[in-house]
Amino acid sequence: MTQFMDVHRGMRGITEEQLREAHQADLAIEKEERVHFKQAWADPESGIVYCLSEAPSAEAVQRIHERAGHKADEVHPVPLTV
Amino acid sequence: MTQFMDVHRGMRGITEEQLREAHQADLAIEKEERVHFKQAWADPESGIVYCLSEAPSAEAVQRIHERAGHKADEVHPVPLTV
Repeated sequence: MTQFMDVHRGMRGITEEQLREAHQADLAIEKEERVHFKQAWADPESGIVYCLSEAPSAEAVQRIHERAGHKADEVHPVPLTV
Repeated sequence: MTQFMDVHRGMRGITEEQLREAHQADLAIEKEERVHFKQAWADPESGIVYCLSEAPSAEAVQRIHERAGHKADEVHPVPLTV
C-alpha cells in the first residue's frame, strides 16, 4: 500500500459539515477498492481540499472519489513522509 | 493558531534523507515564529512536497521555510479538518 495526497479545487465556501459528509461518503465505500482515507483538510477561502489516503493505486483513490461524487483534480503518490 | 498546508514544487528526485534534513532545518528555527511543522509528504516523481503546520499566520510559515532554504510555492490555511 502506498500513501496518496489528492487535491480538489473549486470547493470555495465549503463548511465543516460538508467536508465531514464528503469524507463519510468516501469511507462508506472505500473498502471496495481497499482504499483508506485517513484525513482531509480544507481551505474554504481558496476552495482547496487535500485528502491523505492509503491505497493500492492512484486509480483506486480516484474511483472512490468519483463514485462518492467528488472527483479529485490531482492524485499524487507520497511515498516519502516525515 | 491555525493549521496550514504548504506546497513545494520542483523537488523531483528528493530522497527520504533530503526530506528529513529539510524538515529538521525547519524544526530547528520554527519556535522563533511560533510555528510547528507537524508532518511532510513528498512525491519524488512529480517533485511535489506537502507540509502541514500550525502557525500564527501564513507569513510566519513562509519566513521559516525561506530561512531554512526552501521557500514554499503556496501556503494555504486549512482551518477545516476531518
